[in-house]
Amino acid sequence: MPHIALPDLPGIRGPMAFRPETAKPLNDLVDVLLRGPSSLTPGERELIATFVSARNDCRYCQTIHGAIAAHHLGGNEDLVVDVKQDPQNAAISHKLKALLVIAGKTAESGKLVTADDVARARQFGATDVEIHDTVLIAAVFCLCNRYVDGLATWAPDDPAFYRQRAALVAENGYAASTLTGPTK
Amino acid sequence: MPHIALPDLPGIRGPMAFRPETAKPLNDLVDVLLRGPSSLTPGERELIATFVSARNDCRYCQTIHGAIAAHHLGGNEDLVVDVKQDPQNAAISHKLKALLVIAGKTAESGKLVTADDVARARQFGATDVEIHDTVLIAAVFCLCNRYVDGLATWAPDDPAFYRQRAALVAENGYAASTLTGPTK
Repeated sequence: MPHIALPDLPGIRGPMAFRPETAKPLNDLVDVLLRGPSSLTPGERELIATFVSARNDCRYCQTIHGAIAAHHLGGNEDLVVDVKQDPQNAAISHKLKALLVIAGKTAESGKLVTADDVARARQFGATDVEIHDTVLIAAVFCLCNRYVDGLATWAPDDPAFYRQRAALVAENGYAASTLTGPTK
Repeated sequence: MPHIALPDLPGIRGPMAFRPETAKPLNDLVDVLLRGPSSLTPGERELIATFVSARNDCRYCQTIHGAIAAHHLGGNEDLVVDVKQDPQNAAISHKLKALLVIAGKTAESGKLVTADDVARARQFGATDVEIHDTVLIAAVFCLCNRYVDGLATWAPDDPAFYRQRAALVAENGYAASTLTGPTK
């Protein structure tokens, strides 16, 4: 049961409906970062979000963003599992592997990211904007994971919920989907 | 030296100037959360931000938000130091002490916040919105701290820089102050 009286919506959607004043800029931030113009694909960016949420053990965030990542990746749910469990041996680019190292360190503490980590990402073609966005995606999901779990929100068990929701978000974006779609 | 080629501005202002698309919603979020209508004073909310940034060992964030908190608290810099070092014995309300327990746990992991922590905050008069905002402020500064340190931004040493900047932000807000004011 959530710690405060929230609208009966799963995960981050409960506190977002409770406090639309903060939901609006937070959704705008996630929309521009995960769906705005970028040389990283939406699938790659959702994989970074999923990986960080898994590292932070946030069930709702890792499951919904994993489903959105899979949606963007042609339904490849196995790849999402591989990235969560063992990204360095997953079937992803060397660049994304190097960016996930930066994301994982950022999630623990920004201070852990080294010049060598960044040089390695550059060696595989990462641009400054991609490195910036990787750090910010990791940081934003450290926010979202704590928001979701710090208020003890609930998360559905049924994988079909997340698949259905993922299709809606992938099509319409975060801001537009906040209060719409399946709840359970 | 920052990990990527950022405009020469201290702390979070470098990456914000580098990527205005994400700076806009992030500043909007911080503005509504720390300066929007609330039954928590701006000073109380800045103390929560400062406390979390100190827990996360982010020098830029804890110093600038500490300076903004002191500005709102009539220049009481000693109180800011007390809250960072030993909040349970600082000269603040029982309600704020209970909210800082929730903020500190959220900063480590949202899962650590217990129903007892929340009940204690309520016992001292905290409302659901105040508890929500405390969790979200803590979560937002987990973002900001990682963003600032994950890109290895620089922070000025001179306390006068932070006092001057604090007055500007306290007067004009975060969004309006992003690219203005002293740089060093």
